[in-house]
Amino acid sequence: MTHEDFLQQAITLAVENTKIGGGPFAAIICKDNKIIASSCNAVTLNLDPTAHAEVLVIRKACQALQDFQLNDCTLYSSCEPCPMCLGAIYWARLKAVYFACNRADAAIAGFDDSFIYDEVPKAPKDRKIAMQQVSLDSAHAPFNAWQAEENKLLY
Amino acid sequence: MTHEDFLQQAITLAVENTKIGGGPFAAIICKDNKIIASSCNAVTLNLDPTAHAEVLVIRKACQALQDFQLNDCTLYSSCEPCPMCLGAIYWARLKAVYFACNRADAAIAGFDDSFIYDEVPKAPKDRKIAMQQVSLDSAHAPFNAWQAEENKLLY
Repeated sequence: MTHEDFLQQAITLAVENTKIGGGPFAAIICKDNKIIASSCNAVTLNLDPTAHAEVLVIRKACQALQDFQLNDCTLYSSCEPCPMCLGAIYWARLKAVYFACNRADAAIAGFDDSFIYDEVPKAPKDRKIAMQQVSLDSAHAPFNAWQAEENKLLY
Repeated sequence: MTHEDFLQQAITLAVENTKIGGGPFAAIICKDNKIIASSCNAVTLNLDPTAHAEVLVIRKACQALQDFQLNDCTLYSSCEPCPMCLGAIYWARLKAVYFACNRADAAIAGFDDSFIYDEVPKAPKDRKIAMQQVSLDSAHAPFNAWQAEENKLLY
């Protein structure tokens, strides 16, 4: 199986997903050149704005492997991952990512991926959604409690 | 209730979460100055690298409101949202975000938020995780199918 083969499977799933009310996106995760999980966008179906194909397939692959990391796995997506999904890819520590369409194609189709990419590097106060750090004496209490935990599982 | 009050509640939840094996993060979503959802980091507990406090609380608030958007809602987080959570905030179309610690504090505590912020603006090929667009003739089929759907629910 080539990168093109896996991407073609993701594209086929994405087309089918539009017929059942889902968004036009799908993703596949492979390990040792075998598919271990596939998912389609389910934002409106699940009433969940985080239910992008990549987030769902990462979640599913982690369940399949019973791990919270996917070090030796490759993700194939019908479209370039948005910043949310890109973040998920880093937290899952995937090995590689291949995609067919890109963020500009997504923008033409009416999706905000490119807009969000432009927002991420801005200072919080300059973003379109109002964001602000508020100073509290207790702000560091969670990190202090974390550092003090002897049996914590690092991730 | 002030911004500080809601943030203090998130901080208290985050501290408690470290005692049960969760990460040192919590988030709250409010509508009309009332809490409609709260969640703590559950990455290692759920074996889910996407189970950050903000992602979980957005999902929970959407279920509470039975909507895939949170236009009139405000998110309070014990720490600045990472790029994954920032993307989720944009897709959920929250009104405003307030946080206590920031990405530099998270880095000192051993979390990758700042590293991922640095990766997002890079070209896919220049990132630490290998990423590549692959050209396929069928690449636009999902978006074409989406455009052709008459009853689609835009999001």
